[in-house]
Amino acid sequence: MWAQLRPIGRSSASGGYRRYAWTGADADCRAWFAQQARDRGLAYEVDRNGNQWAWLGDPALGDAVVTGSHLDSVPDGGAFDGPLGVVSAFAALDELRDRGTEFARPLGVVNFGDEEGARFGLACVGSRLTAGRLTAEEAHRLTDADGVTLPRAMEAAGYDPEAIGPDPGRLARIGAFVELHVEQGRALDLSGDAVGVASAIWPHGRWRFDFRGEANHAGTTRLDDRRDPMLPYAETVLAARREARLAGALATFGKVAVEPNGVNAVPSLVRGWLDSRAADPESLDAVVTGVERAARAYAREHGVGLDVVRESFTPVVGFDHALRDELVRVLGPGTPVLGTGAGHDAGILSGTVPTAMLFVRNPTGVSHSPAEHATEDDCAAGVTALADALEGLVRG
Amino acid sequence: MWAQLRPIGRSSASGGYRRYAWTGADADCRAWFAQQARDRGLAYEVDRNGNQWAWLGDPALGDAVVTGSHLDSVPDGGAFDGPLGVVSAFAALDELRDRGTEFARPLGVVNFGDEEGARFGLACVGSRLTAGRLTAEEAHRLTDADGVTLPRAMEAAGYDPEAIGPDPGRLARIGAFVELHVEQGRALDLSGDAVGVASAIWPHGRWRFDFRGEANHAGTTRLDDRRDPMLPYAETVLAARREARLAGALATFGKVAVEPNGVNAVPSLVRGWLDSRAADPESLDAVVTGVERAARAYAREHGVGLDVVRESFTPVVGFDHALRDELVRVLGPGTPVLGTGAGHDAGILSGTVPTAMLFVRNPTGVSHSPAEHATEDDCAAGVTALADALEGLVRG
Repeated sequence: MWAQLRPIGRSSASGGYRRYAWTGADADCRAWFAQQARDRGLAYEVDRNGNQWAWLGDPALGDAVVTGSHLDSVPDGGAFDGPLGVVSAFAALDELRDRGTEFARPLGVVNFGDEEGARFGLACVGSRLTAGRLTAEEAHRLTDADGVTLPRAMEAAGYDPEAIGPDPGRLARIGAFVELHVEQGRALDLSGDAVGVASAIWPHGRWRFDFRGEANHAGTTRLDDRRDPMLPYAETVLAARREARLAGALATFGKVAVEPNGVNAVPSLVRGWLDSRAADPESLDAVVTGVERAARAYAREHGVGLDVVRESFTPVVGFDHALRDELVRVLGPGTPVLGTGAGHDAGILSGTVPTAMLFVRNPTGVSHSPAEHATEDDCAAGVTALADALEGLVRG
Repeated sequence: MWAQLRPIGRSSASGGYRRYAWTGADADCRAWFAQQARDRGLAYEVDRNGNQWAWLGDPALGDAVVTGSHLDSVPDGGAFDGPLGVVSAFAALDELRDRGTEFARPLGVVNFGDEEGARFGLACVGSRLTAGRLTAEEAHRLTDADGVTLPRAMEAAGYDPEAIGPDPGRLARIGAFVELHVEQGRALDLSGDAVGVASAIWPHGRWRFDFRGEANHAGTTRLDDRRDPMLPYAETVLAARREARLAGALATFGKVAVEPNGVNAVPSLVRGWLDSRAADPESLDAVVTGVERAARAYAREHGVGLDVVRESFTPVVGFDHALRDELVRVLGPGTPVLGTGAGHDAGILSGTVPTAMLFVRNPTGVSHSPAEHATEDDCAAGVTALADALEGLVRG
C-alpha cells in the first residue's frame, strides 16, 4: 500500500509532500483510496463534502465503527501525518479478516478532505462541514493564495460545491470513531512506548498581527524619520517565546507577509501570524494577552499601527472517556494517555460521535516536515493496536 | 507631459506605481518617451541595451551633453522617482529653445532601462551594461520571482537579448551627463532649498542572511526541542537597528522569505536581506560586521545554521568635481551640496563620463512609496535649474 502512495505529491527538491486540497496530488491520493476499497471488495462512496468512505457491512444498519484519517499534507510535510491513519485502517481491516473476526457492526474506513488547511487556511474543512461546524456559505468564501475560491477548486476537481453542507444523518449512523495518527511530539519516545491513547486536544488558535508603518527608501530615510513595522514585529516574535516559556505553553510565528518586500524599501506592512496552544484555557489566554500587550507597546514606540485579528480558535476537546478507557483496557493497563496540541478530524467529530485517538511513536518528535518519522516496527505495532481496538468494538 | 505618464502602471489599490522592466507598463512608458521625442522633432534611438535616447543635434559630433533618468519603479513606488528626471529633461530642452539658446554641443535626453531592479534584483541594469559594469553573460542569468529570465523577458517585450553588452563608443561621445532626481531624504526640506547638487553616493550593499532551522509542528513541538530560525532572525533585525544607530549609518531588513511559511509550522528557513549604507566605508563595515557577529551568536544560541552572502556592493561614488562646481556656480553660491544613500544611473556612468546630479526637494523625505512628493513650484524650480545648468554646458 505504502509503495503506491509514497511518490504522490512529493517534491524532489525538499523530499517533503505537497498534497493540497483539490489539486492533482490530492486527486491521485483519492484514486489510491478508491482502489484500496475496490481491492478489498468494500462499498465505496464519496459524501457531499468530498470525504471518502469504504464500508464492510451496510452503514445504514447504524452503530457503525469508523477509522481513518486524511491524505492531504502541509507544505513540504512528512509521509506519516494523515496517511499513516488511512493505511493503518486498511491494514487493520485486513488483519481482522485474517483473524476471522466476526463483524457484528459495520466497519468503515474514511479519508477526510482538506484536513491540513494548507490551501484555504482553515483546517479540517471536510469534517467541519459534515459535522455542521462550518456552513456552506462560510466554505464558499474560502480563497487560496492565488485567489481561487474553494467552490472553483472543487469544480475543477470534478466535485459539486453546491452540494456541500452538514450531514447529520451520516454521523448518526456512526457509533464510534477511532483515528490513528503519528505522534507530533516526543512523549512516547520519552516514555519508551510504541503506541499511546489521546486524552484531549489542547485549546488553540491563530491570531494575525498587522503592523502598519510607512514605506520608504532604505538608502535615504533617516532612522528618526522611519516608521518601520519590521522592528515591532521582531520584538513581538521574541515576546511570544518569552510568554510561552513563562506559561509552559507553545507560541510560534511561522508565517509572515511583508509589503512591498523589497530589499531597499522600509516596509509599509509586516503581517505575522501567531499560533498558540496550551494545556488549559487560562494559560493560553495568558500567552496571547501578554504577546498582544507587548506588541502594542513596541508598535507605539516605533510610530507603527497595529491590528490584532483572531482568525481561528478551538476550545479544549476532551475525547469520549468510556471509549478512551476501553482502548486502554484492550491495549494494556500501562498504555500512556497523553494530550496533544494538534487539531484533528477526530477533534471535530468528538462533539457528535464518541471518538478516540491512537498515537504511534515518532522518534524525533519532528512533524510537518520531511524529517517526521515512525519505524516499521512501531507502524506494525500501531496496526496491531488499532486492530485490537476495532476487534473489541465490532464484535458488538 | 505628466498627464499622459501619470496613469501608466498605477495600482488602484495602493496608489503606487508598478512599472517593472519589460512589462506592459514599461512598454507604455517607453511609448510615451518615443512620442515626446517625435513631438519635439528629436532624433530617437534605442541602444543595444534597451536604453532610449532623444537627440537635438548629431551625437556623432561628440562631446554631447546628456540629461535624463529612468521611468521604471519599485513595487508601489511614487510618481517622481525617475520620471521627474525624464520629464524635467524634456521640459528643460523646451525651455532652452524658448530662450533661443544656441546649441554648440549635441543635447540628448535619456531613459535608462531597469534602474530600480524591482523585477530581476539588480539595480541599474541598462546603465551597467552600457558602461561595461555588467556582462551580457551575467545579465542573461538574471531571473525574476516567477522564474522568467531577463533574455526571455526582453524577447517578450520585442527586444533582442543577444545584442546586449558594453557600448563604449556611445559613452565616448558624451562630454557631460546631468541627472535630475527627487530627493530621497529631508536635507533640502531641513535647509529650506528647492534644489541641491550631489556630492557623492554613499557606499552601500545588500547582504542575504539565511537562517536554517528545522521545520516542525507548531502545536506539538516542545520549545526545548525546536530549532526555530525566526527567533535569531528577529534578534538580528533589532541588532541591525542598534549597529546603524551606533555608526550613524542606515541598516534595514525590508525583505524576508520564510519556508514553509505556514501558520502552524516552525520554519525550516528564514531568509532576510540587510540593506546597509553609510557616509564612509569604515562606518558601513562596522555596521555589517556588527550585525553579522550578533546574528551568528543568536543563531548558535538557537541551534540554527547561518549563511551570510554579500549579494551586491557599490563603493563610494564621487561625482565630477569640476562639473559639480560649475553647477553650483550657475545655480548660485548658496546652493546646498549633499551626499545620498541611493544608487543612480549617474553613479554607474560617473566612472566613464563626467557626471553630476541635481536634487529637487521632497517635503516629507518619503521615497519608494506613493507618499513621495515634490510641489509644483519645486518641480518648476528644478526645470529652471536644469535648464540653467544645461545652457551653460551646451553653449560650449
